[in-house]
Amino acid sequence: MGDTIKQLAVLGSTGSIGQQTLEVVRALPHRFRIIGLAAGKNIALLSRQINEFKPRFVYYPDKKAETHLPDREYQLLSLEDLASHPEVDTVVIATSGKLGLSPTLAAVKAVKTIALANKESLVMAGEIIINEMKRNGAQILPIDSEHSAIWQCLRGEPQPAAQLILTASGGPFRGYSPAQLAKVTPEQALRHPSWQMGRKVTIDSATLMNKGFEIIEAHWLFNMPFDNIKVLIHPQSIIHSMVEFADGVVKAQLSYPDMRLPIQYALTYPDRLPNPQLPHLNWNDISNLTFEQPDFDNFPCLKLAIEAGKKGGTYPAVLCAADEVAVDLFLSQRIKFTDIAILVEQALAQHQSIAQPALEEIVMADAWARQKVLQLTGANP
Amino acid sequence: MGDTIKQLAVLGSTGSIGQQTLEVVRALPHRFRIIGLAAGKNIALLSRQINEFKPRFVYYPDKKAETHLPDREYQLLSLEDLASHPEVDTVVIATSGKLGLSPTLAAVKAVKTIALANKESLVMAGEIIINEMKRNGAQILPIDSEHSAIWQCLRGEPQPAAQLILTASGGPFRGYSPAQLAKVTPEQALRHPSWQMGRKVTIDSATLMNKGFEIIEAHWLFNMPFDNIKVLIHPQSIIHSMVEFADGVVKAQLSYPDMRLPIQYALTYPDRLPNPQLPHLNWNDISNLTFEQPDFDNFPCLKLAIEAGKKGGTYPAVLCAADEVAVDLFLSQRIKFTDIAILVEQALAQHQSIAQPALEEIVMADAWARQKVLQLTGANP
Repeated sequence: MGDTIKQLAVLGSTGSIGQQTLEVVRALPHRFRIIGLAAGKNIALLSRQINEFKPRFVYYPDKKAETHLPDREYQLLSLEDLASHPEVDTVVIATSGKLGLSPTLAAVKAVKTIALANKESLVMAGEIIINEMKRNGAQILPIDSEHSAIWQCLRGEPQPAAQLILTASGGPFRGYSPAQLAKVTPEQALRHPSWQMGRKVTIDSATLMNKGFEIIEAHWLFNMPFDNIKVLIHPQSIIHSMVEFADGVVKAQLSYPDMRLPIQYALTYPDRLPNPQLPHLNWNDISNLTFEQPDFDNFPCLKLAIEAGKKGGTYPAVLCAADEVAVDLFLSQRIKFTDIAILVEQALAQHQSIAQPALEEIVMADAWARQKVLQLTGANP
Repeated sequence: MGDTIKQLAVLGSTGSIGQQTLEVVRALPHRFRIIGLAAGKNIALLSRQINEFKPRFVYYPDKKAETHLPDREYQLLSLEDLASHPEVDTVVIATSGKLGLSPTLAAVKAVKTIALANKESLVMAGEIIINEMKRNGAQILPIDSEHSAIWQCLRGEPQPAAQLILTASGGPFRGYSPAQLAKVTPEQALRHPSWQMGRKVTIDSATLMNKGFEIIEAHWLFNMPFDNIKVLIHPQSIIHSMVEFADGVVKAQLSYPDMRLPIQYALTYPDRLPNPQLPHLNWNDISNLTFEQPDFDNFPCLKLAIEAGKKGGTYPAVLCAADEVAVDLFLSQRIKFTDIAILVEQALAQHQSIAQPALEEIVMADAWARQKVLQLTGANP
């Protein structure tokens, strides 16, 4: 493996995970070539990335942006065509929200290796994606720190895990009362105590919805029943998750919270490469790792996600879509922090789920949920 | 692997590890057959074990003991013949001290699988044992909880570890001043805070000599330079050791401190089997894992062991032998707790080491050190 150069397409290259992916590529230039970049609104950064990495394929949604980009020596492709292009070995899916679903499916169908940071695609359409993957031999390598930790702990173990233990920092509002939570501002919610992340996932971390999504992801990635996936609050974010085996032994994966580690692991897998820019744990500075059970009462999103995951059908798509809209409304200060869970709960309660949905039915459930939350908010602004 | 019955010889069957090995065998009777038992002085227990497991081969040192044993339907063998008998698949070496060396070597030469709990054989003669093992393909599977943890963390990793982190409870006297340490009684030293073990290893844990032995063992078992083996005090004894990889990622193995877990892992390897008698971590009860650096000043045995390991030759044999005699003297209240390190240090200082010693030279160094400590104690009782 050491000699081959992997050809990467990075979808969401200007976001937090995308930028850190490019940092890893910069540190290990002999291993990777960036042949595709896809960005959203940050055209200035995309322009710099194009100048630096000279990708052959580019995607951006705003056609007027072209005038701000370097001279066109690249080909414009759709997200789906980029994710499934024959010259791409590994697709990094680092777009946030629903936008990740369609290119993830395209990459799976094209039998790519997918380094997956987008949670929503597996949450919304886990069954479709995993079935297609099993059928054709595509590979999904998780970039989420928790799933990367589990994947690393399972490495070399011939038998399935007995239990997965997803750790969670607990977010900035761990221990808050309902009254305190109701007063939380977007600014406070965007200040995560241990991880530097994008805005959407930072708010989802504060509500614990993020951990709920991760449970559903873990269910699909590791073929694990929901009752065997536990959440454990671990505020220091040093243990990124754990696996319990049949004999009762537990394995854990540890590092400082730095997304470049799971990104690099997914990109260099099956190898591990030294990278002087990556932090090594300093045990002179770590005196205490603490653990507590999650507070399901004050962070109802966690329970909503587990219930939606267990019920299946189009409930997880509604969970995702309702949350995405509600988080937007919270960030634009149109609803309270605690309204996020209330809106998601109401959308789920009013939804008529379809069992084993086709992709179109998932997309329809998503659209229904977005509309529903906006409608509910009209009554509850 | 699931269908074959492994034929086990258990050397040291009446000791702490030996008894726990038989507990594992009782819990998984379809996987194992005990065909050899070897004990020391506890003839009453050996007698019960013979009645229960009906081994074909038995060893005990005291020829007069025969009258107290069941009717002889077994064959008497020496420890070496038992460890290398053609019908034995796996030899559990659970004898303590120097007594483990000769049967370990016999088992390695007979290309057995060796589940090794005895530390002294690798400390005294690591180079000889490992070279023979590499030459002929015998397998040493560690039973020590720390080495089992490292072995489990390395599982499936194609590249060597960058660093091994051996955890240590710190023993019952962590934080004691030199004056307090000088007054420690054998009774206090035998009360280990987290592990139930034999007397010798319990005292070695209190002085941290045990951790020093484990560093030397880890050096040989995992082909790791001494400078890349660290010790970290972790009083809860939940993380049994850790491995850091080239990319900075750390893997840890966790469980309650219960030797049946690493024993079972070594015996059932490569499988992991459910065993309802083994404890599973309850994260409702674990709120805090703490870590601190070892106190090399007040626990000089740790530094003595590292130095002896680095110097090599016959120094590690002298370390072991001097410690074994000094621990005996402490247990019989003839020297102080703090004299153990002083006597070992003096023996090492006065020793003329032989580089790359043959087994006979190791045995001679061992005898020299025992004599030396007794002689030093005559002058310093």
